[in-house]
Amino acid sequence: MPTDIEIAQAAKITPISEIAASAGLQPQEIEPYGYDKAKIKLDPEVKRPTDLGKLILVTSINPTPAGEGKSTVTVGLADALKLAGKNTMIALREPSLGPVMGLKGGATGGGYAQVVPMADINLHFTGDFHALTSAHDTLSAVIDNSLHQGNPLNIDPRRILWKRVVDINDRALRHVTIGLGGPTSGVPREDGFDITVASELMAILTLSTDLMDLKARINRIVVGYTYDKEPVTVADLGVAGALTVLLKDAIKPNLVQTLAHTPAIIHGGPFANIAQGTNSILATKTALQLADYVVTEAGFGADLGGEKFLDVKVPLLGKTPDAIVIVATIRALKHHGGVALGDLNNENIEALSAGLENLGQHLTAMNRYGVPVVVAINRFTADTAQELAVIKDYVAQFGATAYTTEVWAKGGEGATDLAQAVIEKVAQESDFTPLYQANDAATDKLNAIVQTIYGGKTIVLSGKAQKQLKEFEARGWDKLPIIMAKTQYSLSDDAKKLGAPKDFAIHIREFVPKLGAGFLVALTGNIMTMPGLPKHPAALDIDIDEKGQITGLF
Amino acid sequence: MPTDIEIAQAAKITPISEIAASAGLQPQEIEPYGYDKAKIKLDPEVKRPTDLGKLILVTSINPTPAGEGKSTVTVGLADALKLAGKNTMIALREPSLGPVMGLKGGATGGGYAQVVPMADINLHFTGDFHALTSAHDTLSAVIDNSLHQGNPLNIDPRRILWKRVVDINDRALRHVTIGLGGPTSGVPREDGFDITVASELMAILTLSTDLMDLKARINRIVVGYTYDKEPVTVADLGVAGALTVLLKDAIKPNLVQTLAHTPAIIHGGPFANIAQGTNSILATKTALQLADYVVTEAGFGADLGGEKFLDVKVPLLGKTPDAIVIVATIRALKHHGGVALGDLNNENIEALSAGLENLGQHLTAMNRYGVPVVVAINRFTADTAQELAVIKDYVAQFGATAYTTEVWAKGGEGATDLAQAVIEKVAQESDFTPLYQANDAATDKLNAIVQTIYGGKTIVLSGKAQKQLKEFEARGWDKLPIIMAKTQYSLSDDAKKLGAPKDFAIHIREFVPKLGAGFLVALTGNIMTMPGLPKHPAALDIDIDEKGQITGLF
Repeated sequence: MPTDIEIAQAAKITPISEIAASAGLQPQEIEPYGYDKAKIKLDPEVKRPTDLGKLILVTSINPTPAGEGKSTVTVGLADALKLAGKNTMIALREPSLGPVMGLKGGATGGGYAQVVPMADINLHFTGDFHALTSAHDTLSAVIDNSLHQGNPLNIDPRRILWKRVVDINDRALRHVTIGLGGPTSGVPREDGFDITVASELMAILTLSTDLMDLKARINRIVVGYTYDKEPVTVADLGVAGALTVLLKDAIKPNLVQTLAHTPAIIHGGPFANIAQGTNSILATKTALQLADYVVTEAGFGADLGGEKFLDVKVPLLGKTPDAIVIVATIRALKHHGGVALGDLNNENIEALSAGLENLGQHLTAMNRYGVPVVVAINRFTADTAQELAVIKDYVAQFGATAYTTEVWAKGGEGATDLAQAVIEKVAQESDFTPLYQANDAATDKLNAIVQTIYGGKTIVLSGKAQKQLKEFEARGWDKLPIIMAKTQYSLSDDAKKLGAPKDFAIHIREFVPKLGAGFLVALTGNIMTMPGLPKHPAALDIDIDEKGQITGLF
Repeated sequence: MPTDIEIAQAAKITPISEIAASAGLQPQEIEPYGYDKAKIKLDPEVKRPTDLGKLILVTSINPTPAGEGKSTVTVGLADALKLAGKNTMIALREPSLGPVMGLKGGATGGGYAQVVPMADINLHFTGDFHALTSAHDTLSAVIDNSLHQGNPLNIDPRRILWKRVVDINDRALRHVTIGLGGPTSGVPREDGFDITVASELMAILTLSTDLMDLKARINRIVVGYTYDKEPVTVADLGVAGALTVLLKDAIKPNLVQTLAHTPAIIHGGPFANIAQGTNSILATKTALQLADYVVTEAGFGADLGGEKFLDVKVPLLGKTPDAIVIVATIRALKHHGGVALGDLNNENIEALSAGLENLGQHLTAMNRYGVPVVVAINRFTADTAQELAVIKDYVAQFGATAYTTEVWAKGGEGATDLAQAVIEKVAQESDFTPLYQANDAATDKLNAIVQTIYGGKTIVLSGKAQKQLKEFEARGWDKLPIIMAKTQYSLSDDAKKLGAPKDFAIHIREFVPKLGAGFLVALTGNIMTMPGLPKHPAALDIDIDEKGQITGLF
């Protein structure tokens, strides 16, 4: 079997103008980036259909190093729906460069279920993340310049919330001191860098409904506090216009295609463990306007991206999913059941049965939203018939059905059954029930997430977090939706607790108020907003030859 | 008169595919970025003409806050050559985002002598600077990761040369400490950020002849030293392939147009006060292959960009200029002659005569290369007939002629005389004589630059610089060309010494060996490689409305 990049580079790519036409977009509605990528213009004069397509949300069990293949199943399912004659589009997030050069690789699917051009999408794509990084760090420079130029806003340098960002895994930038070198080089203070996907601007970009909404949200960002502990906003600094100008193209959704030429919108890239973890409102909405079936993905497990899609994105999108697909692999479930990574190719019914509790918790959680749920088993060659039977029986207890998919090897043809099931499910009436109401208290929202979605017992707030909630109440910020920042590897806040831990508490050490994005981030356990590089970064294996042929990208 | 951005936004832009065709490029030789920008592919199979066009280098007196308009004259001259029926192209550098948000504004010309799309070129353009920033900071992260992961290369954290970069004016990042926060967040050390244009990768990108030359140069970068004081290179770290992949598109020259639809290649953006300050070898070479007349610009005054073009770029380009144009304004010359910025609109023959010595030194310096030199006076409305007469008489003493241009108000029609003079000059035989030979000693090269180009007396090396030169001799690096990092405002290393100072010494505090770029940077005076924002940053005045109309960009 060739590698992902080899398959992608050998692909026959249809000119993006033809893909756009097949999706119902006029030539003047797109801006080409090369011949294989385009941005979809946000021309306020373009009138799109008001009847929206069916929305299929793909989520998964808690990820493990064994691999789940959620993006791969998303792409394969869309290609299968297209094979079944349905007018289908995909809405995905853009990959972050940090993990591409680090450990995880890109996020364009795999095997014969990929979006292309794979290398471009995983590298700079159309520059959206770079625009976000520039806008974010321009704001940072403006804040420090304000301190340096006499501090007219009375900003307390010890209480600045707005850190800097780079789209690189760079642990050495987590905690820094800046402004050293004497009076011509700024005011010394503690600072830190996050990865670009953790920027509030990324969250804002993906939640904005148009350019002016983007600007209004940017104006509302709280960058820190004055010495009198009053919030300082971007409106106070006066640079929302400049930041919006920097994001004027980044806000436009990007159009590419799958290997089977299914149109795919890829836009926005918040990580689901530290931000809302789904592609942009504009991307999903545009796809729903253009296609009858839209397959979208939420990052990491159903506890993170899934919950945030349903509780934070859905109210803004104004459209609930018509079906939810939970992706699992037998390998990953066995790992949840205690099998070491080296032994996953051996049949182990006992471990599989234990690990299935992880899938069970996600099934319970997703079932409660009132949307039809199906399970997709992303099949690996070592999976045995008995293992497949065990998982199907288990899933049936939850009133759901598990379908085997082989999209990595076969593309859309490997998901025919899953596509058929999805077509039937989305034709059913669904009765979406939100997890909480906007006016619920923050602690009630937190407990609902922890108990209903994670299967945990309670929340434990640090002293700081308790103090912050009181502050938020006083400021009228306490009714904002909650974004949990939590390890993706466990339902709990301890990455080592695999399977379905019970009776655990979620420890909230701190909240980060994101007034522009319109939510409160709850930092749990020891979650970090800047990853590090591993001992052997992926960058070491990436190369390019004189013909421009790339190797080592995955 | 409308503003630059208003003129640019009202412009009727010809589709870039047509501009490409007019320049002799086949559709498959370009990659569109929207409908108004394109990259020119570096397909090794494309065979271009071997006979090169005529090369016209535009340079200037030492810049002042009064404005010289070098880019404006460059664009206007090219449009004038096109009006005269000549097959003409422009080769310019890309603007840096830092100054656009800071003080200086962009670098796309002005009035009716602009390249368009003005806003895009000044903002993210085709993403080249972002790719450079990403590649640079990926290398930084890999270095700190190597320190963190047991330091197998024995890198001395106190002797790391490779700083980080952002494309933002951010003085608070000049001097930082990183790796704080305990053992999971890297190794603490001193570090600093430069602006992206100062990155050695920028220099490398603009000097590379193809993708494999780029990779070979990246491999040669010295990032620091071991505890045994041996150089550590990118080859030792093993990420040249990944960095080259990140730059695979950035190395391709960008094609846009002037308001008069003259094809313009805009590529690479090193600042001339801290790096080599000219557009890429590939941009200039491609333009020379496609057009009969190529107008190109070197950054800041003839002492910086001009000297570096002639002594560093020309040997790599394999083509000497056929004419040199020195741009001056009467306003700026009066400022050099001691007039305050508020009084420049009053006739002042005495101050003009004093200030002309600045132009005189540049005329002497450029004349010595054996290439025909002309002077372009970028005319302002307040200039008087007597002032114009004085400058023309003065210039005649140097065997040159000064031509009045009015390109800001009239476009190419404002430079008819200049264009005619250039057409005559480039038809003459020129006899290019380099300032120094490759094998000359570094101190001889430095003295040649200081005495012949700057009109100064000598160099003064700090203790550190002397020690470094000995080290470079031992390592065989001492014969590399020199890049002076010097204030652009003065011929000396003191920004306050306007006009033509005499008997001054240039103080070299430190050298920075750039083995990948293939030169030694000499840091003089108190030159800085990271600018700061002013009290009122340009970002405060930039805005965008619901129709996407941008204001405040200049």
